[in-house]
Amino acid sequence: MTKDNLLNCHKRIQPFIHNTAVLTSRLIDREVNANLFFKCENFQRAGAYKMRGATNAILQLSEKQKKNGVVTHSSGNFAQALSLAAQSVGITAHIVMPNTAPEVKKVGVKEYGGNIYLCEPTVPARQALADEIAIKTGATFIHPSNDANVILGQGTAALELLKEHPDLDFIFCPVGGGGLIAGSALAAKYFGDNCKVYGAEPFEADDAYRSLLSGKIEGNDTVNTIADGLKTTLGDINFPIIKELVSGIIRVHEDEIIAAMKLVWERMKIIIEPSSAVTLAAVIRQSKENPEALKNRKVGIIISGGNVDLSNLPF
Amino acid sequence: MTKDNLLNCHKRIQPFIHNTAVLTSRLIDREVNANLFFKCENFQRAGAYKMRGATNAILQLSEKQKKNGVVTHSSGNFAQALSLAAQSVGITAHIVMPNTAPEVKKVGVKEYGGNIYLCEPTVPARQALADEIAIKTGATFIHPSNDANVILGQGTAALELLKEHPDLDFIFCPVGGGGLIAGSALAAKYFGDNCKVYGAEPFEADDAYRSLLSGKIEGNDTVNTIADGLKTTLGDINFPIIKELVSGIIRVHEDEIIAAMKLVWERMKIIIEPSSAVTLAAVIRQSKENPEALKNRKVGIIISGGNVDLSNLPF
Repeated sequence: MTKDNLLNCHKRIQPFIHNTAVLTSRLIDREVNANLFFKCENFQRAGAYKMRGATNAILQLSEKQKKNGVVTHSSGNFAQALSLAAQSVGITAHIVMPNTAPEVKKVGVKEYGGNIYLCEPTVPARQALADEIAIKTGATFIHPSNDANVILGQGTAALELLKEHPDLDFIFCPVGGGGLIAGSALAAKYFGDNCKVYGAEPFEADDAYRSLLSGKIEGNDTVNTIADGLKTTLGDINFPIIKELVSGIIRVHEDEIIAAMKLVWERMKIIIEPSSAVTLAAVIRQSKENPEALKNRKVGIIISGGNVDLSNLPF
Repeated sequence: MTKDNLLNCHKRIQPFIHNTAVLTSRLIDREVNANLFFKCENFQRAGAYKMRGATNAILQLSEKQKKNGVVTHSSGNFAQALSLAAQSVGITAHIVMPNTAPEVKKVGVKEYGGNIYLCEPTVPARQALADEIAIKTGATFIHPSNDANVILGQGTAALELLKEHPDLDFIFCPVGGGGLIAGSALAAKYFGDNCKVYGAEPFEADDAYRSLLSGKIEGNDTVNTIADGLKTTLGDINFPIIKELVSGIIRVHEDEIIAAMKLVWERMKIIIEPSSAVTLAAVIRQSKENPEALKNRKVGIIISGGNVDLSNLPF
């Protein structure tokens, strides 16, 4: 995926997405002794960066493919994003969701006109049902993270961040299925000035951390994390990019995730979901374990989304 | 209070405050069939517009007055604001708070270096303790809402909003002690183009509504509202301005306040406190009861603050 691929993707999706705000917080900066720049994809349409990749993938379909619609499986944010992107161009979206997905995300999919199919919360169960629907309806399957068009789309958040702040030393982003971090790493390679990309992951779903150690895609035996967007595993399209371009993965505990989420809600007055709080939690952990590495550096943080079930908060 | 008073005040406080973002929401616009412009004072320093008035009042003190510090009584946001404003210029702040004030607001005052004195949650109790402290310490009493410098300061939020959107048809803001709405009404008078100002109040603390009806300042027998910032009553400095310039007060029920708060949290991904939700609730009520009045109009909404006790949410 070239620099031009990324630029063309950005140009293609721009009419359909928000160039989201970049916020700062003096108080949090003091706490980590660095200058943080929060790219607020919680303000993105459908409440998450996923709108970028979903839009790019749909805009690349042929007219014939568009007629039969699209199908995907997603724990929530990509589901909403694909539904909204499909609605924007007047095509059908079939969405396979785990039956454990937060209620607010199911409601979002319905509001954006997506057809929901519930399945067991395992990767094989999701894929099997999505394949079945694709065969039955002729819909094009769009993977939420392991798809070149999706990866490019997700990378446009970091692209916008780097256009606004070209001198970032680091970009931190969460790692779920690997689409966001692969896209962000491409953006940093093409538009950063020696900008290093780090991933953030819960200890409870640290498959990407272990995958980078072993050199092959690892799974998770259990995923007991509040960060519901980070339970999925890497794919064969994004993993090579991550292996080549990502500097490391920092893991955090559940209490660190909740504390970081509360810190942002209380101090920045913005709603971020647990999967986004993982990223700040990783920066805070890094600032304690390795204070010199971040000291007075400029750190971009991708706030991936803000879709939270308010009736089920951890504080 | 003249146009120049307001402009000079804005110039004076500008180095100490944020010119906060103005956000919009297509979804909420559709719901009310109007174009809403949310002036996000929840992003203001200390989390509320009160920073504006507190800063203006402190900057107008003589050097001799500054030596003895300031004292006020406040249910929370003015307390934090005066503490932070005092800290900024290196003077002491004595803060009388009702013992029912949310924990998060007490913590905020302490963090900004204010000295807290707790009292019973009644207006006479607050005033008595504040007077006592003023006598003992020589501190200058600064009223949170019934003070010309404070009123001018609070009016700068609407001033900034009107500079960005000079063609607003309406500005809605909450009414507690009356400082914000008096200042906003002055801003609309001097900088609006026939821009009407409406107040929003809980039925459970509708003293301003009744004051406008009777023509004299009315109190509240009870204040059983979630909008903890709106329990106070008008004062003799702001009431004449409100009587002259405010077009009306719209009252809302507690369930409407909570629904509006949830709507903003879920859809706009920003944290607003109940007192701010009262304002959107009033716009929603108006759009139902009198749809033609707002139809396709431009409506400014002052989101007054975002200081919420996350351990005690209404949903």
